[in-house]
Amino acid sequence: MAQAADVLVVGAGLAGLIAARDLTAAGHSVLVLEARDRVGGRVVNQDIGGGKIVEMGGQWAGPTQDKLYALAADLDVPTFPTYDTGKKVLHFGGKRGTYASTIPRINPLVIADIGQAQARLEALAKKVPTDAPWTAPGALRLDGQTFETWARRNTFSRGARTLLALGAEAVFAAEPGDLSMLHVLFYSHSGGSFQKLIDTTGGAQQDRFAGGSALIGERLAARLGGIIRLGAPVTRIAVAGGGPTGSKVTATTGAGQFEGRHIVVTAPPLLAGRIEYEPALPHWRENLTQRTPMGSVIKTQVIYDEPFWRNEGLCGQATGDGEGSRVVFDNSPQDGSPGVLLAFLEGDEARRLSREPLEVRRRSVIDSLVRYFGPRAGKPEDYLELDWQQEKWSGGCYGTLFGPNVWTRYGPALREPVGPIHWAGTETSPDWAGYMEGAVRSGERVAAETAAAMG
Amino acid sequence: MAQAADVLVVGAGLAGLIAARDLTAAGHSVLVLEARDRVGGRVVNQDIGGGKIVEMGGQWAGPTQDKLYALAADLDVPTFPTYDTGKKVLHFGGKRGTYASTIPRINPLVIADIGQAQARLEALAKKVPTDAPWTAPGALRLDGQTFETWARRNTFSRGARTLLALGAEAVFAAEPGDLSMLHVLFYSHSGGSFQKLIDTTGGAQQDRFAGGSALIGERLAARLGGIIRLGAPVTRIAVAGGGPTGSKVTATTGAGQFEGRHIVVTAPPLLAGRIEYEPALPHWRENLTQRTPMGSVIKTQVIYDEPFWRNEGLCGQATGDGEGSRVVFDNSPQDGSPGVLLAFLEGDEARRLSREPLEVRRRSVIDSLVRYFGPRAGKPEDYLELDWQQEKWSGGCYGTLFGPNVWTRYGPALREPVGPIHWAGTETSPDWAGYMEGAVRSGERVAAETAAAMG
Repeated sequence: MAQAADVLVVGAGLAGLIAARDLTAAGHSVLVLEARDRVGGRVVNQDIGGGKIVEMGGQWAGPTQDKLYALAADLDVPTFPTYDTGKKVLHFGGKRGTYASTIPRINPLVIADIGQAQARLEALAKKVPTDAPWTAPGALRLDGQTFETWARRNTFSRGARTLLALGAEAVFAAEPGDLSMLHVLFYSHSGGSFQKLIDTTGGAQQDRFAGGSALIGERLAARLGGIIRLGAPVTRIAVAGGGPTGSKVTATTGAGQFEGRHIVVTAPPLLAGRIEYEPALPHWRENLTQRTPMGSVIKTQVIYDEPFWRNEGLCGQATGDGEGSRVVFDNSPQDGSPGVLLAFLEGDEARRLSREPLEVRRRSVIDSLVRYFGPRAGKPEDYLELDWQQEKWSGGCYGTLFGPNVWTRYGPALREPVGPIHWAGTETSPDWAGYMEGAVRSGERVAAETAAAMG
Repeated sequence: MAQAADVLVVGAGLAGLIAARDLTAAGHSVLVLEARDRVGGRVVNQDIGGGKIVEMGGQWAGPTQDKLYALAADLDVPTFPTYDTGKKVLHFGGKRGTYASTIPRINPLVIADIGQAQARLEALAKKVPTDAPWTAPGALRLDGQTFETWARRNTFSRGARTLLALGAEAVFAAEPGDLSMLHVLFYSHSGGSFQKLIDTTGGAQQDRFAGGSALIGERLAARLGGIIRLGAPVTRIAVAGGGPTGSKVTATTGAGQFEGRHIVVTAPPLLAGRIEYEPALPHWRENLTQRTPMGSVIKTQVIYDEPFWRNEGLCGQATGDGEGSRVVFDNSPQDGSPGVLLAFLEGDEARRLSREPLEVRRRSVIDSLVRYFGPRAGKPEDYLELDWQQEKWSGGCYGTLFGPNVWTRYGPALREPVGPIHWAGTETSPDWAGYMEGAVRSGERVAAETAAAMG
């Protein structure tokens, strides 16, 4: 016997949990079908002992992410500022330097060059409507080129191009050549500006959640009670009956069949495209899902007895153009014990090092930390990692990469419902796409959309 | 009870059928699992009555496609030349002209411009090793940009860029912005040169098969006897046991379970990526399949009582920069009766018109034929079409599109076996990738590879 509800929700990440919350509150019955044996999707904690955790997935909040802050407050999950006191480290062109402002002390010509290029990028980004990037001025031309191409044309120094590449890696877990320029502009505008996406204080990495970001999903799920089915990957969605009203949706999972009147799919387009649909989805939707790969990131956490860098006047943030980790944050628990350096492997480095044995990867990460923070970084107590490229039920992180000609050719299919099938997930949010905030917003939007469709 | 064989082959297109032929000949037992209710994959005939057919999928052969010619001869499928007598039509910038040579009569500056650009392209293509495009000189830079970007940099006239776009549409069923420049070079070299890919006599469209190209697959299948299971889409491939030897492969299909020691997957990477694997595929392979969308083409055949254009000294080939079909061939049966114009809708026009009702699409195609061939083209006897974007078991045509940063980041995963899982299909062939010839070659290669792995 199939279990039934008004609405089936595929995925118990933030988008799915919020959709379930709002639909339930509106009086509809809901069943949430989750492939993994946990909720949270791309947000997950890892226990490091002593009652402490580190965040192995999405973890930060920042200004204008109002929905996320409100949600956390509602669930009694406090925030605290990401550690941002002291100098940053830059290891660039073989030289290490530290700097206090947002402007590193490197060749002033490179500083000027990156400044003018970023100013152009920010000006272009402001003109991209985040609910319809394909209508931006010059959209076809911007979408026909990669960010790499744009960077080559709009910088004169190799140093500036390297800095733009570091930015792309940090923000997208991808290389500039992986990305449509239109997507870079959309994404920047979606979060406010490119600068906001890379900033700590005042930007997308400003705050953390006490107890870890995963608490938000866990507490949401607890409130929803028994409507979540874990270990239930949806492999098939069959729609019977006429238009949006009166249709019956059957979802086949590894844990039996489920029936509803509507279904909300919160998986990223890539994974949504790997579900079998009966009848087949229209090609304009199906073709979108052919063109939505995920980013490449291994998130590593290197644990020390204490955050020794703080005593040296360093905030624990580092970036560089060498091998290993090119983006590092202080990710120690709120009380500063133990010391934790969060070291990302992103884009090409994630691709390269994920084919190496653990010990090679660990060595590469720690060697890069030694370059940034000196020999004490070479003696960690522990090394943790999560390779999101290997996560079957995410397909990669942080989110969907839009290569050239995808937004302009298939963008409208991102949110357009197909009969009783509705699409959500952070990728579908005009605001803060790719972030937890976008996931929350997409859940609210899809719940309202689905409720309206049910009349 | 699962049916068992030494080797399971997924897909009864040319690659799968050839693999089955060679493995059977080497003494191995084989079962071919095909999703559709027919063999042939992207090659299919359509009956037009009177014992005549038109080809709705791959249809041509040309010089250096030795394996395909030999296969057809072996199966008693004769070839005949594509009709290529008379002038070609070009409708460009609102003006119609005809021309006899390969060089159209348009603005000589545009001719000179496209000439120099194509010469550069051909010179670059020669340097791309077709078995390892990622090792080409300057591979990273070529792969970091789209063909559109390259065309903007290497032409000075809009006319030349339009002609390059027409070439991209004709060859890839895609727009220049969909394609990595490295892929365009690889693909050109794979078939000899870009010129060869667009030429009729002397090129990839030189010859047709009497009775239709689909006869090749049908006769191959008939020879193989009862080892093909139609209507058996593979949804899951599970591998049990240790290394390449001694492992057991179980394929789950809509028509039961099948077991083998090895499995050959001939579906294009996109569709191969939508199969569930247990254990999960390594991320370097899985990530390739995230990045391999298919081209966008609707193949239409417009049927007239006779090939009236021939009497007017026209060969039936036409191209243009307007709406509707931008690439047309005479596709009449060998005896010239009835008259058939094969009119492609490719790239953006395929995307746009496939969302319109049939009548709008039909009108747009016929209007374009009237522009090329005059009012008589406005009164066809019939209009046939196949929208490959809608074909669930192809995902699109003609083949896989490689956007930026795919070849250089994931190229080696195209052919690298994963334990007892082997990959074939035209996309995996260094020679004539994307063509029937490439499919045949990939089938031969994978059969040898699999036989060797079985010892």
